[in-house]
Amino acid sequence: MSRKPIVVLGAGMVGSVMARDLAGEGRFRVTVADRDAEALARLKADAPVETVVADLSDLSAVRRLAEAADLVVGAVPGFLGFRTLQCVLECGRPIADIAFMPEDALALDGLAKERGVTAVVDCGVAPGLSNLVLGRHAARFDEGGFEEALVLVGGLPRVRTWPFEYKAPFSPIDVLEEYTRPARYVRDGRVVVLPALSEPEPVDVPGVGTLEAFNTDGLRSLLVTLPCPNMREKTLRWPGHVEAMRVLRAIGLFSETPIEVGGVRVAPRDLAAKLLFPMWKLEPGEEEFTVMRIEAMGREGGVRVRHRWDLQDGTDRRTGFSSMARTTGFPNAIVARLLLDGVIAEKGVLPPERLGGNDAVFAAMEAGLRVRGVALTHSVERV
Amino acid sequence: MSRKPIVVLGAGMVGSVMARDLAGEGRFRVTVADRDAEALARLKADAPVETVVADLSDLSAVRRLAEAADLVVGAVPGFLGFRTLQCVLECGRPIADIAFMPEDALALDGLAKERGVTAVVDCGVAPGLSNLVLGRHAARFDEGGFEEALVLVGGLPRVRTWPFEYKAPFSPIDVLEEYTRPARYVRDGRVVVLPALSEPEPVDVPGVGTLEAFNTDGLRSLLVTLPCPNMREKTLRWPGHVEAMRVLRAIGLFSETPIEVGGVRVAPRDLAAKLLFPMWKLEPGEEEFTVMRIEAMGREGGVRVRHRWDLQDGTDRRTGFSSMARTTGFPNAIVARLLLDGVIAEKGVLPPERLGGNDAVFAAMEAGLRVRGVALTHSVERV
Repeated sequence: MSRKPIVVLGAGMVGSVMARDLAGEGRFRVTVADRDAEALARLKADAPVETVVADLSDLSAVRRLAEAADLVVGAVPGFLGFRTLQCVLECGRPIADIAFMPEDALALDGLAKERGVTAVVDCGVAPGLSNLVLGRHAARFDEGGFEEALVLVGGLPRVRTWPFEYKAPFSPIDVLEEYTRPARYVRDGRVVVLPALSEPEPVDVPGVGTLEAFNTDGLRSLLVTLPCPNMREKTLRWPGHVEAMRVLRAIGLFSETPIEVGGVRVAPRDLAAKLLFPMWKLEPGEEEFTVMRIEAMGREGGVRVRHRWDLQDGTDRRTGFSSMARTTGFPNAIVARLLLDGVIAEKGVLPPERLGGNDAVFAAMEAGLRVRGVALTHSVERV
Repeated sequence: MSRKPIVVLGAGMVGSVMARDLAGEGRFRVTVADRDAEALARLKADAPVETVVADLSDLSAVRRLAEAADLVVGAVPGFLGFRTLQCVLECGRPIADIAFMPEDALALDGLAKERGVTAVVDCGVAPGLSNLVLGRHAARFDEGGFEEALVLVGGLPRVRTWPFEYKAPFSPIDVLEEYTRPARYVRDGRVVVLPALSEPEPVDVPGVGTLEAFNTDGLRSLLVTLPCPNMREKTLRWPGHVEAMRVLRAIGLFSETPIEVGGVRVAPRDLAAKLLFPMWKLEPGEEEFTVMRIEAMGREGGVRVRHRWDLQDGTDRRTGFSSMARTTGFPNAIVARLLLDGVIAEKGVLPPERLGGNDAVFAAMEAGLRVRGVALTHSVERV
């Protein structure tokens, strides 16, 4: 039997992890496309993949690549996310997508159904694995019994360096979004909008120490899909980071409105990006780790319980892959297989919580993370 | 007897205080020059002064104004300080000057002597009053007995507003200098250079609370004139301010080297000025206060003592003058009188410590501050 062709769009940190993961198995013929020839060359030296230098902002290139594959794995930068997804669906190809996008991917559900294909979107760690876990509990709690959901997640450097004690494990432009985009939550059944960087609070993480959690807009599709009246999502940083970012925001450094400076017009945010991104760059060999905690409280067979899932992962010293790339890429690579194997059969645009009721998917995810060395533990207590 | 003509160069916050102070006495004919016609109009409505709209960056204008006066009072922005002083001395006019200048005013000592005139420079609160006090102790300590000098000074808003809890009571460009210019100290008889914003430490101020002191480059002329092997000068802010400024400096926001941002070149510091200065603006009616502590330790008649001087002053609610304008302007206005009255007779460029041995000057300063409501207390203890 010939190997099924898969195309991975994007050879960034996460795209590389997924390409390597999928190619390593030998079941698939993996092509990776990116405009960065060097990144492709590095990947090719490491893994049995084919590479194509392509500008993925050019939709005709995306179309050509998608049409040549049985399945697309999406890992483009956020600003290309939505239109790339749309283009792949128009080509009638299934896609497992981790691209962040400010737009609502569910708006393409009709298109996906019309073309008879499946797109699993936002399929990283959080959003992604967190959605799958919460979707699982939604499917298992008593009808109307889901009371409270909480997701805490962060990717952080092991070595803390003042002032930010932070290195961006993914696109720094998307990181900056976390500090500016208002956070949408559900409280008492209603969506509330909270300022970015609001409600900082200490969170003790075993083996890590005390981190600081602040509101971010990470619930996304869960806001409409999860039958739960109280949902929160917060991002974790080393303590002090939030205060520093609040200062930068307070002076207007994140504003996108150009101002006149010394005879030229400049958007403060563009300058912020120039100054901050080099400081946030994860250096080769620099170790980081990912922490996620998911809590789901509700009634199960009439008993009120709180489920808690804890994920921890660190840099893979052998491959050099960051934990954020691993924990983001693995769930999507696992889902890509489940799509090709027909374990996920439903058509349309599916955020991962929609797969939570599928025990085969969940079992494959747990097993898949385990063999890849990602620590995911589960506990449950009566409350 | 006709009133002696005085010209005040600069109708900013400090210039206005001095003009009003000198004009109020009736002994002088006070002319105030500035390019800001509105500031002049406000001043004229309040005090018996004449006003001239003039661009003080134009030296021919400065020359005309100086030549028409018996004495010049200097209150121009820092970047005009040195050349304005030079121009006045070239005209052969005495000057009492509070302008901050990055250049060394003592370099004009030869010129002043050659023209047979006196310039008292850096004659505000600190530098200024602090120099006079330290110069007094230098004159009174035993030969070689001056061991340690410390100056702490700050001008702060009464109401603390996050994130900076600061309002610039004088030129914000000069404030930014405090955060970037390395601080020169004397330790064990040698000049050492310390980074700006270094060595923050808490300082308890009675009636105010805990402030934070950090190294600034305020010793200036004292570095060479004062016979003291250990000298420090620190600026006071509400706690937290230093950390915020260190973050801004760490990201490169104070750099004067232009970088390319969105197709244009911009110096980050210019953008910082645009963003920060409006936040640092003291609003009409907003109360602030000035705190200064001077310590001088040494042997007096063989006994080791520590002198301590404490100054506190607040916004003058009647005139609306800020305490920083008052405490900076009054010493200079008092010195201006002493120059005209011949109490200060020495020729050359004199930093205030050079006047410390003159008991008549010191007595006039103490009495002058007292009648103007500035609280200055002195204590001495054996150590």
